[in-house]
This record gives sequence, structure tokens and C-alpha cells, in this order.
Amino acid sequence: MAAMIGEELRAAFHRLFSAMAEIGATPAGGVCRLTGSPEDGRARDLLAATLTATGAEAIADTVGNQFGLFRLPGAGDTAVLCGSHLDSQPTGGRFDGTYGVLAAVVAAQAVRARLAAEGRTARHHLAVVNWTNEEGARFQPSLTGSSVFIGSLTADAALALADGDGVTLGAALDEIGWRRDGTLPVRPIRAVELHVEQGSVLETAGVPIGLVTGAWATRKLCLAFVGEPSHTGPTPMARRQDALRAAARAIEALYGIVEADGKGAHASAARLTISPNSPNVVASEVRVWFELRHPQQAILDDMAERFLAAATAAVAPLGVAVETAIDERRPSLPFDAVGVEIVRAAAAALGHASLETMTVAGHDVLALQRKMPGTLIFVPSEGLSHNEREFTKAEDLDRGLDVLAETLWRMVTAANV
Amino acid sequence: MAAMIGEELRAAFHRLFSAMAEIGATPAGGVCRLTGSPEDGRARDLLAATLTATGAEAIADTVGNQFGLFRLPGAGDTAVLCGSHLDSQPTGGRFDGTYGVLAAVVAAQAVRARLAAEGRTARHHLAVVNWTNEEGARFQPSLTGSSVFIGSLTADAALALADGDGVTLGAALDEIGWRRDGTLPVRPIRAVELHVEQGSVLETAGVPIGLVTGAWATRKLCLAFVGEPSHTGPTPMARRQDALRAAARAIEALYGIVEADGKGAHASAARLTISPNSPNVVASEVRVWFELRHPQQAILDDMAERFLAAATAAVAPLGVAVETAIDERRPSLPFDAVGVEIVRAAAAALGHASLETMTVAGHDVLALQRKMPGTLIFVPSEGLSHNEREFTKAEDLDRGLDVLAETLWRMVTAANV
Repeated sequence: MAAMIGEELRAAFHRLFSAMAEIGATPAGGVCRLTGSPEDGRARDLLAATLTATGAEAIADTVGNQFGLFRLPGAGDTAVLCGSHLDSQPTGGRFDGTYGVLAAVVAAQAVRARLAAEGRTARHHLAVVNWTNEEGARFQPSLTGSSVFIGSLTADAALALADGDGVTLGAALDEIGWRRDGTLPVRPIRAVELHVEQGSVLETAGVPIGLVTGAWATRKLCLAFVGEPSHTGPTPMARRQDALRAAARAIEALYGIVEADGKGAHASAARLTISPNSPNVVASEVRVWFELRHPQQAILDDMAERFLAAATAAVAPLGVAVETAIDERRPSLPFDAVGVEIVRAAAAALGHASLETMTVAGHDVLALQRKMPGTLIFVPSEGLSHNEREFTKAEDLDRGLDVLAETLWRMVTAANV
Repeated sequence: MAAMIGEELRAAFHRLFSAMAEIGATPAGGVCRLTGSPEDGRARDLLAATLTATGAEAIADTVGNQFGLFRLPGAGDTAVLCGSHLDSQPTGGRFDGTYGVLAAVVAAQAVRARLAAEGRTARHHLAVVNWTNEEGARFQPSLTGSSVFIGSLTADAALALADGDGVTLGAALDEIGWRRDGTLPVRPIRAVELHVEQGSVLETAGVPIGLVTGAWATRKLCLAFVGEPSHTGPTPMARRQDALRAAARAIEALYGIVEADGKGAHASAARLTISPNSPNVVASEVRVWFELRHPQQAILDDMAERFLAAATAAVAPLGVAVETAIDERRPSLPFDAVGVEIVRAAAAALGHASLETMTVAGHDVLALQRKMPGTLIFVPSEGLSHNEREFTKAEDLDRGLDVLAETLWRMVTAANV
């Protein structure tokens, strides 16, 4: 079977991808496009201009979620959502998120063109989307726009989220002109996201397409360690209540449990704030953002509880209190089985091998899954993710784009989807 | 023997102390006067106005060191320096540094008045001083102004020091109008500093005056842990090079060595910077400011070397490199014996008990000691230091002020000093 993406559209995709990679480009080949930054604004402007140029209806909502509605002949008030995000980590890669948004734009064009060429109708429209603050790099929690879209987070709460400097998401969006008042005028019936894998499963197996059947369960905890300021010199050691020493103990406790268990969990402590952060004042308050992830919910839950108990016990002798500032649980939801089979069939029809896998990382489609069937498609990653050296080969991008277009075609035309 | 500080001057001291405590006052009873901040500017303005009102010559130099020259009858081109600092920690106490500066202003007035009353001459002038950035809270290293004054740090290097936001000391001083071009027109022959103890030795012993005979040796190290950014989710644990995990191990290594040794060392890790500081990106670079202190140089040196070796060994399995960004050694120098005897005699003459002790914390007079005899006098502290609840009783402040005035009198009038 021939791919729906012709040479012209394929070239347009690569031109668009290169143009987007220029926005917020970092010296090491990555991008820095924090949500609400000028670079985020320019990325949104480029997407909006591209959508309008293709004849899609460009819409943005109150938290900056950006939609491109491709109205298809014959469809009523329903649509298949397809997209990802254009924001990045501070030293992010140029594929993460961006690939999924731009591939959706091109795949939607291909589906629309094929319907016209074959004189056919569709059962659903296609809505391309760029979700706000997927990364959670500047504002926590992550998956902000998609969570607001499905109602698990209110728009007011999202707009009030503050970054490390106290700037709110609302103010940041206003600054770049992307707090809007649009709403998507169709009812989404399922969501699809194409993404680079960010792990090494596909690369190791030598398979170009990942059929994502489920997500690892994730627990995100922000713990506040509360001690007391004192002079790092004369204060007797026994008199100190050292919040940074407590945080270090808790970090060690986390990795100790994960390694002793040997059950393949992933864990991290990657963000930290410290007060007063003077070399001569014992830290009075330290906050650490911890993450624990495991494919099995029960194992994760047990591990997280043992971590909390171990951290509390480890810091108690220091006279430091532990408070849970954030406790976010993302359950291990399986992806919609119908979607997995459509992607499997699409890949097979195009002659591409595929492999069932799970996602460890969070994705917008995971947030959306609470309200509609979700489908996640992976292409291989080389090297690292959340790193400027993140890389996926052009032929792998092309295969993913082909599979996405074929998947969307089947989703909007099949009688039973 | 009657104290030189009469009721009027004593009341003036307490009024001045209260006025200064208002500048940068924090809700919990402390002060926040970071170097080069608007509050630091207002504190300097108050000191300058006070000096001018007392008839002293107010001078400030290129790094903002602020002098008040009390010209005494009969003196030539030499002076005894006496002062401390008006800058504070972010949540500092109102006594630390401020007491020494304001007591020096009042003691110098008392000495000058007594010379006039008795029709006597002095051998040296008195120069009151407020040293810039003693605390090192905003700009590191600490003791900045006094180090420039004695030539162990160049003015250019000091002015180029940058805070956490990249603002230089020079720019910060310009902002508040305190980068000046004055120089002290006399040659300092010794330096005296009166300070609250910040420890509990005097309070425990019930003695009002501390004769400081020496300083603990101090090693200040800023270590950079350099790993690589990656996604906290899918990146295999073995593939990560986690700089924060490395920093936590090094912090634990520090306290482990100090406690296992049981030799009474003081140690801390109180300032930390982290990059990129996103909850979803394994930290690629973490810097930690460590301090180790011990009365004996040899024990400190051995402990510091074992710490560096242990930290390097602990983080090596993580694939994280350790680089020494700052390595500052403050040797355990004894204070000038003549000065100690003058203070001992002054206290005895006033009927105040005194006790030989050492300073654990750094003080400007320690930097000055490299070039001139230095004398440090302590009064008791209650509670904590580098804490808004820092406290010294009024009667202890008064005793210290009396001893300082008597000490300065003896230093400027005695034939053999």
C-alpha cells in the first residue's frame, strides 16, 4: 500500500520541522521554549500561520490550547483530536512534542486531500492541537492544557499557577498574547498522539513503530523539609535543624529503596528549592520534587509508601519536619484497545514492523484518556530525551508520519470507530 | 573605675541601634539587609548622617567600605580601626555586625570627649568602619570589603562578583549610590571589632566579656557536580548521570566523616544551585557550598582531604564528575596577644569578668589580621545566630560598649601600643 503523504507534503513537513527548531534553538542543537516565553509565543504564531495557510480553522482557548480544525466533508459535530505540545524543557530536544504537533498538521492535510481525491466523506472532523505547558518545566503540574480541556483542572487554577519567579501562567500567556477566548466547536470523540519514544525499547529491538498499550503508574511528590536557620559556623552541630541535610537523606532513601527492591522502578529527584540559600546559614526550608514510576500500580504504591516512611524516619533525628506539598498520582491506565489495533493494522498495511510497548513518561493523551479513548504512537529515539542531543532519524520521522496519516484516515472513515 | 560612656551617650547608642534595626526589619524581629540592596543603602545613609553629626569625617571607597575618621588631638598619620558590618543574612539578626559598627561610633565619641575633658593628646586617630559584604550572603566570597582594604582581593575582582541573578557588586553599589572614590587619609596600625558571640560559650559560663585569642581554621569549598540532562521518566536508571543524586551523596559523606571522627568539627552544606531545575529533567549540574571548621588546622586539613576523597568516590559510580569551583582556606590565626591583654585589663578595670575563647565564625578583623594586629571582643548571645530571633540583653550590650571604649582609649593613648 502506498503512503498517503506524497513528496510535496513530506518536504513541507521537514521544512516546517526545521523552521520550528529555529525558534528557541540552543547552541547544543536543542530548543528552549518554556511555556509563556517569547519563544513559545513565536512557536504558536508559526503554528497558527501554518494552520491558516492550509485552510484549517485556527482557534485558541483561555489557557492557550491551540486548535486547528480541519472540517471534513460529511462529518457532523464530532472530531478526532490529534496533537501534542510545542513547549519544551529548558534544555529540551527539538523532537519532543513538536514532532507530534507538526505531523498532525501534515497528516490532517493528507487525509483531507485523499477524501477530496476519492470523492469520499468522513464521519468525523480532524482537530490538530498544541496543548499548553505539557512539560511542566516552568509551571507545575505538567499536562496543564489537556487537563483543563477535559475538566480535571479548572482554567482559573491553571491560570493561577506561578513559576519560580511568581509569574502566573495567566500573566505569561497575556504577555505573549495567547490567552484567548475560543472554544473548539466540535465534540472530540478520541485523541491520538504521535511522539518520539524517549526510551530505548524500539531502538534496541530495531522496530520503527511502537504500539503503546499502557502507561507506567506515576507518583509525583513535592516534599517540604522544614528546619530552622542558624549560623553554619558557631552553632553547635546538635543544635542545628538542617533542612538541606534532611533533603539529602531523603534523596538517598529514595534511591536506596529502588535499588534494594530491584523491581525496575524509575525514580528521580530533579527539582529543588532552598531557603535562605546563603552559604553561611543552615537551610531552613528545602523542597524537593520526587517522582516514582513503575508499570504496576501495586508495586508503585507500596514503594511510594515505604519511601515516605523511610524519608520521615531518616530526617526525624535532625529535628526537621516533612510536609507533603504536592502528591499527584497518575494511575497505570491501559490505552484504548481499538486504537492500538487500528495503529497495528495501519503500520502493517504500510509494511512497517510494530511492537507493543508502554510509556514511562506522561503525555497529554494520558490526561485526555480520562474522558475519551486515547491512542499513543511511538517512533524510535536515539540517545537521550529532555536533552539538547535528543535525536530521531528522518526515515523514522517519515514512517511515523505515514502511520499517523493512515491511522487518522481509518479513524475518520471507518464505520465502527 | 567609672565607665567612659555617660548616660547621654548610652541613650544615644540605644536610639541609634533601634533606628538601624528598623531598616530592613523582618516580621520575626530580624533584619534583611543584603549588600547593595535599598535597605543596605538606607543603613549606610543613616550611618553617614550619624558620623557627620558627630563631627567625624565620612569617607567611602570604591567597594563601598564606609569610614568615619575621628581626628584626635596630637595624633599624626596613624589610626586605630574599629568597626564591623551593616549587611545581614536574608533572615539575619539585628545585632550581628550592626552592634560592632554602632558601638564603635559611640565609643569613639567617648574617647574624643575624654581627651578634651582631660586636656590630653592621643598617639593615633580613631577610624570607625562599616565593611562591605561581610556576610557573603548575596555575593561570595564573604569579608569582601575588608579583603580589598588589605589587598588580598583586588577592587576590580570584588566589583565583578555576581549574585545569583548575575548582578555585580559594582552595579549593586552604583544602584544605591555607594560606589565612591574616597580613601582613608591615615595609616591603620591595628583593628578592633566588637561582636555578639553567636555561640553559647559565654552564655553557658555566665561571663559577659569574651577575649578572643584565635579563630577556628575554616575551609570553604564550592563543588560542582556535573552530570547530564535526561528525562526523569523513560531514561533507564543505569543510563542517568544525576548531579543532584551525586550532591546528596557528597552532603551525606561530609556529615558522615564529621560524626565518625567525633573531634568536634563544625560542617555545613547550606547553599545549592541546580540546573536545569525542572522536575522532569535529571539534574545536569549542581553546585554545593560546603564549609568545614575546626580549632586545629591539621585536623581540619586532614578532614577536608578525606571529605574530598570520599565525595569523589561516592559520586564516581553515578558517572558524575566533581569539580572544585571555589577552595578558600582561612587558617587558624591567633589574635595579637597585646590586644588580648589590653581588653583583659580594660574589662578588669571596669569590674567585668572575662573569658578566653575562640571564634568559629569569620569576621572582618580576621581578614585585616593579615596586615595588622587584630582584636576581637565578644559579648554573650542568647539563642541563635543568622536567625531573626538572635538576641543579646541590653546590659550585655552596655558592658561590651564600655569595654570597647576603654580598650580604644588605651590603644590610642598608651605609649607602647
